[in-house]
Amino acid sequence: MQIDRYTSMALENARQALRISSPNPRVGCVLTAPDGALLGQGHTQHRGGPHAEIMALHDAAAKGNSVAGATAYVTLEPCSHHGRTGPCCDALIAAGIKKVVVSIQDPNPLVAGQGIARLRAAGIEVEVGPGATESRELNIGFFSRMIRKTPWVRMKMAASLDGKTALMNGQSQWITGEAARTDGHAWRARSCAVLTGIGTVLEDNPRLDVRLVDTPRQPHLVVVDSRLETPLDAHLFIAGRALYIYAAERNDVKKAALEARGAVVTYLPGPNNKVDLAAMLRDLAQREVNELHVEAGHKLNGSLLREGLVDEVLLYMAPKLLGTAQGMASFGPLESLADAIDLQFLSTEMLGNDLRVLARIAGRDQF
Amino acid sequence: MQIDRYTSMALENARQALRISSPNPRVGCVLTAPDGALLGQGHTQHRGGPHAEIMALHDAAAKGNSVAGATAYVTLEPCSHHGRTGPCCDALIAAGIKKVVVSIQDPNPLVAGQGIARLRAAGIEVEVGPGATESRELNIGFFSRMIRKTPWVRMKMAASLDGKTALMNGQSQWITGEAARTDGHAWRARSCAVLTGIGTVLEDNPRLDVRLVDTPRQPHLVVVDSRLETPLDAHLFIAGRALYIYAAERNDVKKAALEARGAVVTYLPGPNNKVDLAAMLRDLAQREVNELHVEAGHKLNGSLLREGLVDEVLLYMAPKLLGTAQGMASFGPLESLADAIDLQFLSTEMLGNDLRVLARIAGRDQF
Repeated sequence: MQIDRYTSMALENARQALRISSPNPRVGCVLTAPDGALLGQGHTQHRGGPHAEIMALHDAAAKGNSVAGATAYVTLEPCSHHGRTGPCCDALIAAGIKKVVVSIQDPNPLVAGQGIARLRAAGIEVEVGPGATESRELNIGFFSRMIRKTPWVRMKMAASLDGKTALMNGQSQWITGEAARTDGHAWRARSCAVLTGIGTVLEDNPRLDVRLVDTPRQPHLVVVDSRLETPLDAHLFIAGRALYIYAAERNDVKKAALEARGAVVTYLPGPNNKVDLAAMLRDLAQREVNELHVEAGHKLNGSLLREGLVDEVLLYMAPKLLGTAQGMASFGPLESLADAIDLQFLSTEMLGNDLRVLARIAGRDQF
Repeated sequence: MQIDRYTSMALENARQALRISSPNPRVGCVLTAPDGALLGQGHTQHRGGPHAEIMALHDAAAKGNSVAGATAYVTLEPCSHHGRTGPCCDALIAAGIKKVVVSIQDPNPLVAGQGIARLRAAGIEVEVGPGATESRELNIGFFSRMIRKTPWVRMKMAASLDGKTALMNGQSQWITGEAARTDGHAWRARSCAVLTGIGTVLEDNPRLDVRLVDTPRQPHLVVVDSRLETPLDAHLFIAGRALYIYAAERNDVKKAALEARGAVVTYLPGPNNKVDLAAMLRDLAQREVNELHVEAGHKLNGSLLREGLVDEVLLYMAPKLLGTAQGMASFGPLESLADAIDLQFLSTEMLGNDLRVLARIAGRDQF
C-alpha cells in the first residue's frame, strides 16, 4: 500500500523507540492541522512513560500549536485501557482531535479494536490501514507475544563462508570484524532479552550486554542452564540487568546462591534432563519479552531449530573458510532434503568485509 | 580510471566472446573515423578464427566504411606473431589506421609489447591503459595461464545457509533452485574446462556439460581419478568433448580402455597415492586451459584449498538449514583462526530464492 507523508513520518517516529519502549510496542504519532501543517510528533517512551499520542500532544502544546480539529496519525491503535498510563483514546478525544489515521489494530486483547470503537463513539473519524505492514513488522515481537503468546525468536550467528562458528579447539573470537560486531550489538539493543546457553557461559564467559552502540536500556539476559552450572563469578552478572536462568534439574542450594546474585531461577524440566524450551518461551512471553535475541552455541541453536522455536536467522558471514570446525546448528542428520528447514532471505548487506544475511523461517510470520 | 565511450564499446564487444574464444582471450575492437563516427566493431571468434581487429576491419568494409586515418580501440594489445591467424598488427598497419588505443599489454610472451612496438614503428600513435582493469579481469584466466603458467581456478559450490552441500546419506539434488542451476551453467560455459573428482562421478554420474544456457562450445572435462575408477559407461563420455583424466596409480589396462572411449589419461602421482594437483594444473595450463571451473565434493575441494590452488569461490546458498550434513570443503582442523583461508567478497546477488556469493581468495589476483 502507498503510504502518505504523515504516516511515513509517524513510522519514522516509531522507529525512534526501537531501543527504548520495551516491552511496549514502538509507536509513533504525528498531529497535523486541517491545512496540512505539522503540529506535533512523538513516540513511545520507556516502560511506564508516556505513549506516542501523549508525546505528540505535548510536543504540539510546547510549540504553542492548537490541536482542535487536527488529524492524528498513529502507527498502532490508541490504547483504551488504564495500564501504566491513562488511555490515549481519552487524551485524543479531550484534545479535540477530529480524525485519527491508525496503521493497525492493537493485538493486545485489552485493546483489540476497543480504542478505535471508543474514538468513533466520540464522533472522531477513524481510518485504519496505512502503514499496517511496516508497523506490524517493526513490532513483530509485540504482535508475536500478544497473538502467539511467545516471543519472536531471532537467532544471531557469526560464521565463516563455509558455515563454521568455531574451530574444533573452541576458538571463535573473532570470526567476524568490528562492523559486524557493532551491528550485532545494535540488534541486541532492540531486543527485550538476549538468550544464551550454559556452554557459551562456561567457554566464553561473556557479558552479552550492549556496549558497542548507545542504548538507554540493557536487554534482560536469559541462560539455559539445565544443571545450574552458571559460576557465581561469571561476567554475566551485571547490576540492574534482569537475569533469568532456566534449569531442568532441581538444586535448591545452587538456586539460592544464584538468586542471591540477582538471578531469577525457574525449573522447567523437559525430556532428557533438558530445559523445556517451548515452555521457557511461553514463560518469557509472560515476562513481557517481545523480541528474543539468541546468541548460543551449535547445540542450543540446534535444539531450538529442531523444536521449531526459531523465527528468524541473523547471520554474519566472514570472508573466510575454516574447513573442519564447529557448525552453526546441530540437528539431524536429515533423511531427505524435503526435511530441510526452509528460510526466506530478507536482506543481505556488507558490513566492513563481512556479509550480513537476514533470513526468516518460512511461514513463521504468518500469525 | 574513467573509460571513454569507445573503450566501453570495445569491452562490450569483448564480453560477447565470453563463451566463444577459449583458449584465446576475449578481445573487442572498435574503429572510429576522425570525426568520431563509428566505422566497425568486432570480437575474437572461436579458436583458430579471426581476432577482434580483423572482425572490426571486416565489419567496416562490409558497411562500405573506409578506415584510412581511423582510430582503433582494442581491449588487448594486437598480436604480432603468426599463430593460428596472421598478425593483427600488420592488418591494422595495412588498413591505414592512424591511432590505436590499447587497454592492456598482451601477457603472452610471444607478444608482450612487441605488437605495440611494431605499431609505433609503423608511425601509428599508440595509447595504452584505458579499460586495462576490465580487460584483465575479463581475461583473468588467460593472464593467469600466461603469467603464472596455471589456470585461474574457480570453485563452484551449492550449499545451504549453514554450509552443507549434501545430506549424510549423500542426497544433494537439489539444494539450490532452477535460477541458480542455470546461472551455474553460464559459469561452466565461460570456462575452458570443468573439473570434478571420481567421488562425484561415482555418486552422481553427472554429465557436467552446458545444457541450461546456449553456448557455441562445450568446455573440456577434467576428472581427478587416482585409481582410474571412472566407469566406461559413465555419462561424462560425450562425443566431441575433450576429457582429461588424471591418475596416481599406474594401470595401463584401464588407461587403454578409457582412452578407447576418447579420454586422455595422464599419470601424475603425488604423495599418498593421490594425484599431484599442482602438477595437474600446470599440465592443464599447457593444454591451454585458462579458466578452470571446479564442481567437486568436499574431499577434492578440501585438497585444492589445503594446497593453495583455488583462486575464487562461486557459492550458491539456498535458504535452507540442513544441520548435521556434509560440509563444503574438508581441510584442517585448523589450530588458530589466523590460519583461516581469507577471502574477499566480490559480489552478492539473489537468483530466485537463492543467494549467489562470489568471493576471491585474498591476494590471488596479484600476479
